[in-house]
Amino acid sequence: MNSEIKDILQAVQSGGMSVDDALLRIKTQPFEDIGYAKVDLHRKVRQGAAEVIYGAGKTAEQIIGILKTLTNNGQKNILITRLDQEKADAISHETPLTYYPAAKVGIVGEIAVPGGIGTIVVATGGTSDIPVAEEAALTAEFLGNNVTRLYDVGVAGIHRLLTHSKELMSASVVIAIAGMEGALASVVGGLVDCHVIAVPTSVGYGAAFGGLAALLSMLNSCASGVSVVNIDNGFGAGYLASMINHMEAK
Amino acid sequence: MNSEIKDILQAVQSGGMSVDDALLRIKTQPFEDIGYAKVDLHRKVRQGAAEVIYGAGKTAEQIIGILKTLTNNGQKNILITRLDQEKADAISHETPLTYYPAAKVGIVGEIAVPGGIGTIVVATGGTSDIPVAEEAALTAEFLGNNVTRLYDVGVAGIHRLLTHSKELMSASVVIAIAGMEGALASVVGGLVDCHVIAVPTSVGYGAAFGGLAALLSMLNSCASGVSVVNIDNGFGAGYLASMINHMEAK
Amino acid sequence: MNSEIKDILQAVQSGGMSVDDALLRIKTQPFEDIGYAKVDLHRKVRQGAAEVIYGAGKTAEQIIGILKTLTNNGQKNILITRLDQEKADAISHETPLTYYPAAKVGIVGEIAVPGGIGTIVVATGGTSDIPVAEEAALTAEFLGNNVTRLYDVGVAGIHRLLTHSKELMSASVVIAIAGMEGALASVVGGLVDCHVIAVPTSVGYGAAFGGLAALLSMLNSCASGVSVVNIDNGFGAGYLASMINHMEAK
Amino acid sequence: MNSEIKDILQAVQSGGMSVDDALLRIKTQPFEDIGYAKVDLHRKVRQGAAEVIYGAGKTAEQIIGILKTLTNNGQKNILITRLDQEKADAISHETPLTYYPAAKVGIVGEIAVPGGIGTIVVATGGTSDIPVAEEAALTAEFLGNNVTRLYDVGVAGIHRLLTHSKELMSASVVIAIAGMEGALASVVGGLVDCHVIAVPTSVGYGAAFGGLAALLSMLNSCASGVSVVNIDNGFGAGYLASMINHMEAK
Amino acid sequence: MNSEIKDILQAVQSGGMSVDDALLRIKTQPFEDIGYAKVDLHRKVRQGAAEVIYGAGKTAEQIIGILKTLTNNGQKNILITRLDQEKADAISHETPLTYYPAAKVGIVGEIAVPGGIGTIVVATGGTSDIPVAEEAALTAEFLGNNVTRLYDVGVAGIHRLLTHSKELMSASVVIAIAGMEGALASVVGGLVDCHVIAVPTSVGYGAAFGGLAALLSMLNSCASGVSVVNIDNGFGAGYLASMINHMEAK
Amino acid sequence: MNSEIKDILQAVQSGGMSVDDALLRIKTQPFEDIGYAKVDLHRKVRQGAAEVIYGAGKTAEQIIGILKTLTNNGQKNILITRLDQEKADAISHETPLTYYPAAKVGIVGEIAVPGGIGTIVVATGGTSDIPVAEEAALTAEFLGNNVTRLYDVGVAGIHRLLTHSKELMSASVVIAIAGMEGALASVVGGLVDCHVIAVPTSVGYGAAFGGLAALLSMLNSCASGVSVVNIDNGFGAGYLASMINHMEAK
Amino acid sequence: MNSEIKDILQAVQSGGMSVDDALLRIKTQPFEDIGYAKVDLHRKVRQGAAEVIYGAGKTAEQIIGILKTLTNNGQKNILITRLDQEKADAISHETPLTYYPAAKVGIVGEIAVPGGIGTIVVATGGTSDIPVAEEAALTAEFLGNNVTRLYDVGVAGIHRLLTHSKELMSASVVIAIAGMEGALASVVGGLVDCHVIAVPTSVGYGAAFGGLAALLSMLNSCASGVSVVNIDNGFGAGYLASMINHMEAK
Amino acid sequence: MNSEIKDILQAVQSGGMSVDDALLRIKTQPFEDIGYAKVDLHRKVRQGAAEVIYGAGKTAEQIIGILKTLTNNGQKNILITRLDQEKADAISHETPLTYYPAAKVGIVGEIAVPGGIGTIVVATGGTSDIPVAEEAALTAEFLGNNVTRLYDVGVAGIHRLLTHSKELMSASVVIAIAGMEGALASVVGGLVDCHVIAVPTSVGYGAAFGGLAALLSMLNSCASGVSVVNIDNGFGAGYLASMINHMEAK
Repeated sequence: MNSEIKDILQAVQSGGMSVDDALLRIKTQPFEDIGYAKVDLHRKVRQGAAEVIYGAGKTAEQIIGILKTLTNNGQKNILITRLDQEKADAISHETPLTYYPAAKVGIVGEIAVPGGIGTIVVATGGTSDIPVAEEAALTAEFLGNNVTRLYDVGVAGIHRLLTHSKELMSASVVIAIAGMEGALASVVGGLVDCHVIAVPTSVGYGAAFGGLAALLSMLNSCASGVSVVNIDNGFGAGYLASMINHMEAK
Repeated sequence: MNSEIKDILQAVQSGGMSVDDALLRIKTQPFEDIGYAKVDLHRKVRQGAAEVIYGAGKTAEQIIGILKTLTNNGQKNILITRLDQEKADAISHETPLTYYPAAKVGIVGEIAVPGGIGTIVVATGGTSDIPVAEEAALTAEFLGNNVTRLYDVGVAGIHRLLTHSKELMSASVVIAIAGMEGALASVVGGLVDCHVIAVPTSVGYGAAFGGLAALLSMLNSCASGVSVVNIDNGFGAGYLASMINHMEAK
Repeated sequence: MNSEIKDILQAVQSGGMSVDDALLRIKTQPFEDIGYAKVDLHRKVRQGAAEVIYGAGKTAEQIIGILKTLTNNGQKNILITRLDQEKADAISHETPLTYYPAAKVGIVGEIAVPGGIGTIVVATGGTSDIPVAEEAALTAEFLGNNVTRLYDVGVAGIHRLLTHSKELMSASVVIAIAGMEGALASVVGGLVDCHVIAVPTSVGYGAAFGGLAALLSMLNSCASGVSVVNIDNGFGAGYLASMINHMEAK
Repeated sequence: MNSEIKDILQAVQSGGMSVDDALLRIKTQPFEDIGYAKVDLHRKVRQGAAEVIYGAGKTAEQIIGILKTLTNNGQKNILITRLDQEKADAISHETPLTYYPAAKVGIVGEIAVPGGIGTIVVATGGTSDIPVAEEAALTAEFLGNNVTRLYDVGVAGIHRLLTHSKELMSASVVIAIAGMEGALASVVGGLVDCHVIAVPTSVGYGAAFGGLAALLSMLNSCASGVSVVNIDNGFGAGYLASMINHMEAK
Repeated sequence: MNSEIKDILQAVQSGGMSVDDALLRIKTQPFEDIGYAKVDLHRKVRQGAAEVIYGAGKTAEQIIGILKTLTNNGQKNILITRLDQEKADAISHETPLTYYPAAKVGIVGEIAVPGGIGTIVVATGGTSDIPVAEEAALTAEFLGNNVTRLYDVGVAGIHRLLTHSKELMSASVVIAIAGMEGALASVVGGLVDCHVIAVPTSVGYGAAFGGLAALLSMLNSCASGVSVVNIDNGFGAGYLASMINHMEAK
Repeated sequence: MNSEIKDILQAVQSGGMSVDDALLRIKTQPFEDIGYAKVDLHRKVRQGAAEVIYGAGKTAEQIIGILKTLTNNGQKNILITRLDQEKADAISHETPLTYYPAAKVGIVGEIAVPGGIGTIVVATGGTSDIPVAEEAALTAEFLGNNVTRLYDVGVAGIHRLLTHSKELMSASVVIAIAGMEGALASVVGGLVDCHVIAVPTSVGYGAAFGGLAALLSMLNSCASGVSVVNIDNGFGAGYLASMINHMEAK
Repeated sequence: MNSEIKDILQAVQSGGMSVDDALLRIKTQPFEDIGYAKVDLHRKVRQGAAEVIYGAGKTAEQIIGILKTLTNNGQKNILITRLDQEKADAISHETPLTYYPAAKVGIVGEIAVPGGIGTIVVATGGTSDIPVAEEAALTAEFLGNNVTRLYDVGVAGIHRLLTHSKELMSASVVIAIAGMEGALASVVGGLVDCHVIAVPTSVGYGAAFGGLAALLSMLNSCASGVSVVNIDNGFGAGYLASMINHMEAK
Repeated sequence: MNSEIKDILQAVQSGGMSVDDALLRIKTQPFEDIGYAKVDLHRKVRQGAAEVIYGAGKTAEQIIGILKTLTNNGQKNILITRLDQEKADAISHETPLTYYPAAKVGIVGEIAVPGGIGTIVVATGGTSDIPVAEEAALTAEFLGNNVTRLYDVGVAGIHRLLTHSKELMSASVVIAIAGMEGALASVVGGLVDCHVIAVPTSVGYGAAFGGLAALLSMLNSCASGVSVVNIDNGFGAGYLASMINHMEAK
């Protein structure tokens, strides 16, 4: 942002821009206001970079409006999360959309070529955690990562997890997804020496309290290298894992 | 209780007891009322059986009073839990007492000869859980059990736990004691095929919320065969483990 | 597990197994990976042993897939919990299934011949607790136990409970199931000298907070010998009761 | 209050009072403002009626100031609750005070002659609940009631409670005081046919959460005729019990 | 209960009853076991006394079964609470039933002739609290009380409440029903000198947390003479009010 | 109120009003009792002043009844909040109603001419907060205020908010509406020097806990000049903003 | 902030400032960084304007350091909140300080001349709420407002509050401070037609849960025009009241 | 771990190791059991690697014992967290220790030479958050990272934060530490495109609930790339930041 301001100031100094225009520019937003949303065009800088729309709490019409604003500004690849089948159908009438019902994820355009430092492992405690895991895995794949899925490796049968120690050991990031008691994050955290992103899920009943038990368990993990995102936030975990997997010196 | 009532009724029928005496007897309590406490003498039936006093919230004077009532009624061996050093000193002036400061447990009389179906394993997640573990272990030993202590075997270093799989596999009951995320219970529950009594502890900080995180984690254990007692309730776990370890057909 | 490793090592030493094969064997999992689940085949060792599938959060297709994997591996008797009528119907088209709608439990194969140390008593505070109680009772019966049902014996009419003191006194384990204030566990715990497994239920309204009141009440029971499982976890209680009722020296 | 307004209006009508004086009188407060407190003189109507000062959160100086205002207005008998020893000593230097350390209650003047419809029973689950119980019992006695104390009759040893069924059956009100799981209220509520005022106490540890477990348990009592006051609110229970015990037709 | 036991003992003494018969009688329950419920026949003693069935969580078939058991034992007047329209219709086909949809209450037989010490006032904070209030009012009327309804007198317009000070002042018991902030109980408690039974309701949204805000508010009432029942527990309040309104010396 | 009482007293003094009439008048309510509601007519004093009906928890019939009472008493402009489409349709059959579905607000009569000290800014963190924002904005407009809407200016893209610093700086009151982490209120509070009314919304999932996270965040705002209303309480914020925007010296 | 940027841009345009200097100035902070704090000098614009230091969690040395930075920058009048006696003494050795122990407030310099639209009323439910009230009242006075204190006017004795209706009616803002059930805010909100700032306090015990009960009660106030600040946040309420009381058209 | 097992198996195959020795080796733990702790020696592999001791809940004697075990096994550099002054003094008598009182951190040996991908920025909302921040910063420095401290840059004065956008933009990881409403994490998350590790602190009062408000706020962050560790867990954040900052391809 500094360099942009400097450019503007130099234009003013050189007489190439009026004071009022400069003031306007400094304040001009890198987004487009379509009434119900300020569509972020910040990441448009590089041709083809990816964009994300959080679909929950938005009508199909609103999502279509945002999609149009993005594509009009040159976005080719867009991920839509928390998208139910009905909205996906409505959107498909307007624009080509690949829909993944298990993950409730829709993708406009293409998934990026995999890259990054290494592989991202997505592990779940049980079968019921798979929808959250798929949201995480698809997000990471969309953003250009190799993803290994290890599903149903909960700690009550620790041998199921230990069998996959090779995949775990060689991961650059592990996303550990579990409901109920959420112990998976701690056990994985003790096995690997990379970052473990813990995702509590709302899977369970009674004293699971909608994911609270798993959330607290993960926050209190006695293993170092574990951090936590919101309950059921597969997207957040996938996005963060990709960010870490693509780290490079600045 | 049925047989006692029957005895009384037969005594009435035979004329050996008046109606009013019988009524009195049926209602006579198997405890002694010393004002601030109804001292339970129920278990006095067999000479030498053990008694337990919960020391918290009672003054040294009250504990001494209850001890006297018990010993006057033939109790020789009495366990006092949640007993701080100061009260233990005061009691020691009145009656011989073996005091275990780490467990805050005092014992009048003797520890029972070990017996039961097998060995009780007491495992902790960390070093800070040891006071609760010692309360559990001493309770079980006092009641006549062989106890194996496995301390600091938390799941963040799963190899520390797996090293002791032999002791765990051969236990008749395992008491799994952990604070923070409380994952120990689930992992142990997945390894063994005996009852795992989970004891959450108030060890931890922040989102541990005084043991709530471990408690919820243990209640939601995905392993079968796990049940839970109150936070920091080492006595309850030790008592229950002994009860199970001494089961016999009725 | 130790003996298995020893066998493998001896085979290596004797030249009967290559190093790479041994490494593979040591790491080979006692389960079958069918993508969305790692089906545990651990208990398959003895012909005919029982298996359990937790039905909630799994599609009928997934359950059928797990059933097939189990039966292909020799399992004859399988218990499915949290199974609604619709899924039960779908499964019935594939394999013979006995369905118990009150308990939402389905059974493939046969219930084991009753055995164990003694009788398991399943008691409820009210009529509305019966579905949880039936899940517990059927689980215990499926695993080979004699079960006595005492329903609607809540503490507000203590005489209803005391009438059954004979059944309670002679139980090897009591499962005390109650919502609302959950006092049943404490009162039963004070009457019997065996393990009381307390199951809070989500029955009630207002300050019952979905079973929280009963859960806290049971965790704080002033009676010794009481431990607690998750809210509405009838299966867990039945499984644990069976485990205790079948204890034997190792 | 209506009759007072009517008297004033008639005085205005008859010319015995000016409009401004009447306005003043209608608004004149039945309390005295001493800056940090509006001392209520409402109940002063009948010579010798009792007054109550809640001692917590007030300095000894403030309590003495309120006492003086009350005695200057003819109050002879005053109950001070939540009064610690230190403040009691400071007050004693100014005015004769009978102090009950177990209940943290101080009384200026005299306890009323016992009366009312019947006897108030104050029952506790354990020994540690006695301070709350004494606050309740002394309050009821101060306000003119016969009080029967039944301490340490918790439900884990139900025979201790049943032994006293005669006292319970003949009570006009029962105050059931318990911490931990608070089941006493439900069991008593099922035994008697009078009002049971339940007082949860902060006695306990871990999942007792400072009385929350007992509070929720009592609010969910399955027994009819039970209502609840705040945690540790012995005074409130004693006051309410006295109010009910002195009911008469209006 | 004492007198019953004494009668039995005298019969034994006189030879009019065998020991075994006496034992049976002492243990014989004053209820009838119909499988899913132990129907309480305790209050049947006086011809025509009222009975109550809690309808929630019971099927229409179960309610009909309990009704039959009661009427077969001489009960003529029965109150059914938490009864939805559908179940009411099903029951109506079996037995004459007066159904009050606003209160979700059904009555078999007749409402008792009003009596007691005085009038019971049922006050609500708003219009939305009326269903709970009607449950309370109908319960009290069914049990033989004069009831005055004061609806929508919440404290945000204190003049609406003060207008009715005459009715409030002359009540023997006031039931104060309010959701949201639940302040009604405190204000009423400061106006009257009789027992105020506070009923928090689940009316409200957001930080009302399903009645929790009103519940805590009422438990912390700074007015003396207030006690609280469960959220939405109109029946409990009406039952308790009737009990207090019919107090008489024992 | 004082002046009204004085008028009455003077009428009594002058003989122009009897004592009983005066008593009646002093107690006469400024509302009309229509059974299920006490319709407040207090604000009717000035011709045409606005009235508000909270629609949730009231039937269409009740709302129509209240509307009639108000219009019969001269109210022309009435705002109805929390009004769903179905009830709005039913009301429209009886009286002309302008319905705003996004805000679930209905208006009878007209919106007041805008006035007050300045402009009210209504800002939201995201698109999903718009329904609450529209309730706030329409309420403020109905009560006669100029409203500027700034939607989807959440803090995760702080430049979207800073772009509008001019509108924010010149507001007389800002209503900051946000779910999830609710940080908008703090950031806005740090930018402006007017009152910020924070409205947490129930938008979000998982650890948002129905608006609790945003509520706590806003209550703990480190910015001065921020106060909070209930979760989703757009009306309350709009009403309060209007009150402040119309302040004048008394 | 816009005008400052415009000035800089014009200086660049006119050649009076280099591009790099301009960039520096645009980014130059209106605060001074003293390592452990960024001292805000934003409000220094007008000579003599007031500053506030939040004293909790800062050492006396840190506070003295911030004071010096402020006075070096021309601040004469500074309010320090949450200042205990010990720190106040330490500060007094460095700079003249007026300390108010009841409010834990210290003032350097002078209190502003009272002004604003009208009077601010500070009302408390009880005597124990006075410390919070004094923090609010002193803050408002320091910022230049007339303050009327109404202490101990809780709703349990509603006549104490109604007596002061004149002061309440004529207030420009009312700060309603109460612990326990916090009903004061609703009752005051129903009496006045100005903004009521509700301050829950941590006064109370048991189910007051450290102010949570009062907080929830106030958030759910059924009176319009009420908003809430954090528990015990007297400063925030006083600051906000002053802001509103000094509103003027922009 | 695989390669170690393979080595052992090859030694067995070659006859260089007996079966029993191999079994022992496979099970031999990479830790030393000193009774109260299993000291992890896992990371000892590379000479001079760092070790960490969590000091809370351990006695000085226990810490010294663990230190000796570690140094005996070749560890030179050891970090001790949550170490109070008193224990630090005791340890200093045994071994040279550099103690940082603000962070309650002690270091034996040396801080590693800084390296990694880039710089770690540690930012706090206020002055009171500095102890947690120092724990994080010292941990990261100890593990070999360049750390930039930005303290007191809370969002209520957003310009304080924006001034440092350069440091934030160029960070490889940002640790955002804040109590109260915890909004710092979201605002920073929206400014940077690297991982933001959010650390809620227990700073605040009232509805901060010991860090719960900040924790929930951070978990619900609307910014992508944010994850959360436990309340006050400065060590965990510093450790994780270092791990990410030292990522390299495997």
